[in-house]
Amino acid sequence: MHLNGILQESPKTLPILQATFGLERESLRVSQKTGRVSQKPHPKTLGSRSFHPYIQTDYSEPQIELITPIGQSTKEALRFLGAITDVAGRSLDDDDYLWPLSMPPQIEEDEIEIAKLDSQFECDYRQHLADVYGKKLQSMSGIHFNMELGKDLVASLFETSHYDSLVDFKNDLHLKLAQNFLRYKFFLTYLFGASPIAEQGFLDSDLKGPVRSLRNSQFGYVNHDDIKVSYQSLEKYISDIEGYVSSGQLIAEKEFYSSVRLRGSKRNRDYLEKGVSYLEFRCFDLNPFDNRGITQETLDIVHLFALSLLWLDKVEDVDQAIQLGKDINEQVALAHPLDKLPKEAPIQDLLQAFRDLAQHFQLNSYYQDLISKIEAAIEDPSLTIGGQLAQHIQNQSLQDFGRKHGLAYKEYAWTAHYALKGYESMELSTQMLLFDVIQKGVNFQILDESDQFLKLWHGDHVEYVKNGNMTSKDNYVIPLAMANKVVTKKILSQAGFPVPAGSEFDDKDSALAYYPIIQKKPIVVKPKSTNFGLGISIFQEAANLEDYEKALDIAFKEDSSLLVEEFVAGTEYRFFVLDGKCEAVLLRVAANVVGDGKHTIAELVALKNQNPLRGRDHRSPLEIINLGDIELLMLDQQGFTPETILADGQKADLRGNSNISTGGDSIDVTDKMDPSYKELAAQMATAMGAWACGVDLIIPDASQPSLKEQANCTCIELNFNPSMYMHTYCHEGPGQAITPKILAKLFPELDD
Amino acid sequence: MHLNGILQESPKTLPILQATFGLERESLRVSQKTGRVSQKPHPKTLGSRSFHPYIQTDYSEPQIELITPIGQSTKEALRFLGAITDVAGRSLDDDDYLWPLSMPPQIEEDEIEIAKLDSQFECDYRQHLADVYGKKLQSMSGIHFNMELGKDLVASLFETSHYDSLVDFKNDLHLKLAQNFLRYKFFLTYLFGASPIAEQGFLDSDLKGPVRSLRNSQFGYVNHDDIKVSYQSLEKYISDIEGYVSSGQLIAEKEFYSSVRLRGSKRNRDYLEKGVSYLEFRCFDLNPFDNRGITQETLDIVHLFALSLLWLDKVEDVDQAIQLGKDINEQVALAHPLDKLPKEAPIQDLLQAFRDLAQHFQLNSYYQDLISKIEAAIEDPSLTIGGQLAQHIQNQSLQDFGRKHGLAYKEYAWTAHYALKGYESMELSTQMLLFDVIQKGVNFQILDESDQFLKLWHGDHVEYVKNGNMTSKDNYVIPLAMANKVVTKKILSQAGFPVPAGSEFDDKDSALAYYPIIQKKPIVVKPKSTNFGLGISIFQEAANLEDYEKALDIAFKEDSSLLVEEFVAGTEYRFFVLDGKCEAVLLRVAANVVGDGKHTIAELVALKNQNPLRGRDHRSPLEIINLGDIELLMLDQQGFTPETILADGQKADLRGNSNISTGGDSIDVTDKMDPSYKELAAQMATAMGAWACGVDLIIPDASQPSLKEQANCTCIELNFNPSMYMHTYCHEGPGQAITPKILAKLFPELDD
Repeated sequence: MHLNGILQESPKTLPILQATFGLERESLRVSQKTGRVSQKPHPKTLGSRSFHPYIQTDYSEPQIELITPIGQSTKEALRFLGAITDVAGRSLDDDDYLWPLSMPPQIEEDEIEIAKLDSQFECDYRQHLADVYGKKLQSMSGIHFNMELGKDLVASLFETSHYDSLVDFKNDLHLKLAQNFLRYKFFLTYLFGASPIAEQGFLDSDLKGPVRSLRNSQFGYVNHDDIKVSYQSLEKYISDIEGYVSSGQLIAEKEFYSSVRLRGSKRNRDYLEKGVSYLEFRCFDLNPFDNRGITQETLDIVHLFALSLLWLDKVEDVDQAIQLGKDINEQVALAHPLDKLPKEAPIQDLLQAFRDLAQHFQLNSYYQDLISKIEAAIEDPSLTIGGQLAQHIQNQSLQDFGRKHGLAYKEYAWTAHYALKGYESMELSTQMLLFDVIQKGVNFQILDESDQFLKLWHGDHVEYVKNGNMTSKDNYVIPLAMANKVVTKKILSQAGFPVPAGSEFDDKDSALAYYPIIQKKPIVVKPKSTNFGLGISIFQEAANLEDYEKALDIAFKEDSSLLVEEFVAGTEYRFFVLDGKCEAVLLRVAANVVGDGKHTIAELVALKNQNPLRGRDHRSPLEIINLGDIELLMLDQQGFTPETILADGQKADLRGNSNISTGGDSIDVTDKMDPSYKELAAQMATAMGAWACGVDLIIPDASQPSLKEQANCTCIELNFNPSMYMHTYCHEGPGQAITPKILAKLFPELDD
Repeated sequence: MHLNGILQESPKTLPILQATFGLERESLRVSQKTGRVSQKPHPKTLGSRSFHPYIQTDYSEPQIELITPIGQSTKEALRFLGAITDVAGRSLDDDDYLWPLSMPPQIEEDEIEIAKLDSQFECDYRQHLADVYGKKLQSMSGIHFNMELGKDLVASLFETSHYDSLVDFKNDLHLKLAQNFLRYKFFLTYLFGASPIAEQGFLDSDLKGPVRSLRNSQFGYVNHDDIKVSYQSLEKYISDIEGYVSSGQLIAEKEFYSSVRLRGSKRNRDYLEKGVSYLEFRCFDLNPFDNRGITQETLDIVHLFALSLLWLDKVEDVDQAIQLGKDINEQVALAHPLDKLPKEAPIQDLLQAFRDLAQHFQLNSYYQDLISKIEAAIEDPSLTIGGQLAQHIQNQSLQDFGRKHGLAYKEYAWTAHYALKGYESMELSTQMLLFDVIQKGVNFQILDESDQFLKLWHGDHVEYVKNGNMTSKDNYVIPLAMANKVVTKKILSQAGFPVPAGSEFDDKDSALAYYPIIQKKPIVVKPKSTNFGLGISIFQEAANLEDYEKALDIAFKEDSSLLVEEFVAGTEYRFFVLDGKCEAVLLRVAANVVGDGKHTIAELVALKNQNPLRGRDHRSPLEIINLGDIELLMLDQQGFTPETILADGQKADLRGNSNISTGGDSIDVTDKMDPSYKELAAQMATAMGAWACGVDLIIPDASQPSLKEQANCTCIELNFNPSMYMHTYCHEGPGQAITPKILAKLFPELDD
């Protein structure tokens, strides 16, 4: 049984990079007005801290903690953190923003309110910490990095190791990692240390000048000197901590603040039977140059660093080596940010391990480049985060810097606020729902990203959601019915609702024989199953037999069945009905510009396109208006060119169709629409048996209400999986939030 | 206000043929063994007569009544009747069959048991009829033809008529139709009369020779002579009948047995306020040359006849004209089947009306041909049904003829018994479900035939069904999850079920980086979303890196995502799980033949294809085995040609894939499969949340049970909308009926 050289003896094809990651980031809420720590309570929009898995409060009420679920890669973990940061940023009070630095702005003990948690134990624990360490110390913020080696990787290493017990193997493996972490921690402090100063009044006595990382030094949040825990063996580690807890020097095992923690069980002693399963590295200062507090490169360097710790050998006298490592770390932490590493730091051993590891496992150029960057930063301290941050210190303060960056990150959160950062490849409605999911603290997993397939859960309650509103709340056959125009019409009609009169035909003879019935009416002839306007003929006046026959031929080219329906004149509105209630009404208007007597049409289009809601390819709530062939033809028909200067209030249409996807305007008329139509739409969806349903009504005169004896409107379509975002972010009108209602109905217990 | 000439004055484009139709057909159950009326009770398989809308008993227990729902055309009505006939034929006791003639086989009063209905009123009514008319008379069977003129047609006529009240108009219109019907009824008796003789002992005294229609003569089922109802006006008609009821000469209004009935309200007097809405023609003898008792041509002739009655003028003295018509009808009914119409029959008036109608409304060649056929049959009585039937009379009896045709029709019902006659264009599973629906008496409407979309209802309880098992019982998102392989695997795996280990990749680099993890394992590389075997590579031994890379390229050509999965060896079984219970297990074996030492492979294939379950294009439970290129190649690889004579028991494979659609064998192993696997499959479907689910398990050794600690199998796929017919009609094994279970679960109240 040995661990030294274990990686060196592994095949080159070992899945060395396989691992999972989790991040926890603390950050203080700061008031824009006062420039000091916010005195507001934790935002109510963020649901309940009694269960919230992603957004919690750490020590004090204004200290938000952002927690990612486990990611299958550093990329995924960071994406999670980005999204949670995004949600937190948009959930804060208008006056609050997140402080981007580990060290707080100017602060007094009595400004710091202990977090108002439900758990009495957690409150008592925090009061104890205040008594032992003082409240100010607790206001320092940082990032914890959790890492678990991949299952296949551990299994392969176990095989190589000739250990008999997987538990023993995992314990030894993680203990070795922890030991070496403490020996080489100085490396992380050097590269990523970013707490160079404390604002005036924070420390009892001022520092002489900026340092690399106050937080990773003796001034940081550490146990008192008398707490000395051995890492020589797991048994020793456990019994040392247990000793301090039973003597009362620590209130609980978790009060042992090592910069590396063994993880996987709540009680240390359980590791002996169950094995350590992962490690938590707790030493990272917030990187103020990134809105998330940490970068992709940092994560991957830490990952490589952890693997290099495994590559390096164990030493005989572990505790002595760790003490040496701690001394070096203290030197590095308190050195000037532009100082190089001290000579006694065993950096070459570590760099060699990086290089050997990369060579042995043939890591790709990304990792080779990372190692080069590390080497460069070792040579040139100005390339470290601390080195860069030092340039921003003014009058021994980073208050202005922190404010400027913190506000910029908040502004960034509100940029393209209809999207969820990092998830822009998903549909807007799904992004919006995920925002709500994170905000309210529902657990989620993206089961299939390109398929918009989510798993949501709260306690034992699991819900699957596809495309934002395809859920367990609808039964299977109803959306299938809505997907079929003929079936939908029959069901609505049998329930007594107004639909266009008409009939379906599978052959031309029967369709021709129907002519007597429609010969005096305005009609639409359309293929049964196409949706893109192909093969449709509209006769706003009654059709003669010849034209009718032509229309049949055209429609039969597209489908083997066609519909002949009464043509209904009027304005089309989309009613969004959820669970029997109409939640939104939208009017869609074809792409257009309205003149001001000064600008050309081309200029008006450009001006309209400046709306930040307009983008391309359904990635934004509204689409950019093009000036392509169709639009130019449309202008021409109105006697316009792009150079035409429209009179004030004069309108030019750029499209004949009112689709949002071709630059149309969405107008939220929910509050203006007569309630009788909303009620009618809701009744239609209910008659259909639909939970989430888009009801398209043609209303000839919306100023007249719908009456029981006369609906005054016609339903031309019911839509399953109706678009939600278009009701929320509109060209005109207040907009209606729908995804929060979906979530609240899926998880009504959240409101309890 | 006038009705004469109303059609003549209508525009040629009037939708003259618009109408709806319903049919009721009576038929006696007869015992094959005894040749006499069956003494068995109404079949239990046919559900409850207390609500059955399609299959009832008429007067006596063995007199089945088949009732169609309303059809939008004669074609649809006849198709309904064919299907109900099909279901009834296959629901009878083995010894019973349906008597194809209106006149019963030899029968005695005491053989006839009054129908055992739940309703005491119905039983008392039948006892009253027995007392008044005798039981034998009640054993005559016939067809009632219900017809309602189309809504647009009636509306147009109403407009032409200048009537003020639609109710008055409809009443006058239908009264005129009824009057003219009685005047010209002889026409129908002549063409369709088919009750030429009574078997010995039926009549008190024997007839001299065969006649056209005993049933439509004084010997038929008519009121006593003292019942005389005037058709002069609706008010007179109603009060006459009411008078007989209050005097006790009729027990109820429905005991007035006119060959035409006004319909639309239960009580005659209601017509005055609500209007007559349709007519019932009750005079049709069973046509023994058609298994349904009536042909398409007959229906369309009756339709034309009814329209001609409208074309013809009203007469002044209605009751006198009707009496004349009745006299002529009696002559025609009691004439020899080969006699021509009597001179006094006003047939030319009627034929002229047919012709004028067809010309005025430019009816197409089908109707022109019908009129020619009518004219020919008027000229030549041997072309009438009665004329043809007369040739089959032997020894003044039609017993042998009736038996022969009745048994042939029963055999026909059992031909292609997996299908529902008339509905063969629909999917087999839907046909099977429709069979059950009709058998158990659930109301149905086909909302969209090509989309397999059904509406089923019983009382107020409505269920929609698509493709046989897509229903309200599944929730929307679960089938969507099953449609996605990655999502399915994740859900099953998170619930602790065995699925092939593997991962999904969107780019080649990540997939290559995965190689270390699978380098020693048998694997499958497949595109994420295709289902047709395209782009799949299987490595039963571990793949080298080069081959692995090739496989990635191949899969990425088909899809932008691929799966790399552990290859699982073993036999694949399909488990059909419904509502948490495994109902069937199927083994599918690739197309093959097994030798007998005598026949060539080509001959063995031909023999195997003789199985009536084999057909083409999924219209049969099994497919014809082809001897195409793929099969020849497969034979060649085994060293065979189509001319090879296989040794006894020697097997030749004709396909590499086990799909039923390429001639594979379906083997029902439900009873043989170890219950542990059935339980596991059921648990998987339940964990998924699926109601109807096909679970595909690979089992390396089915003789070993599945254990809690070791599943001994792997789930490779869950299927929504799983095929049902393939479990029911199998190449081998007893087969499991599934659609009746679907229906019973949709309508549990049917069992109450």
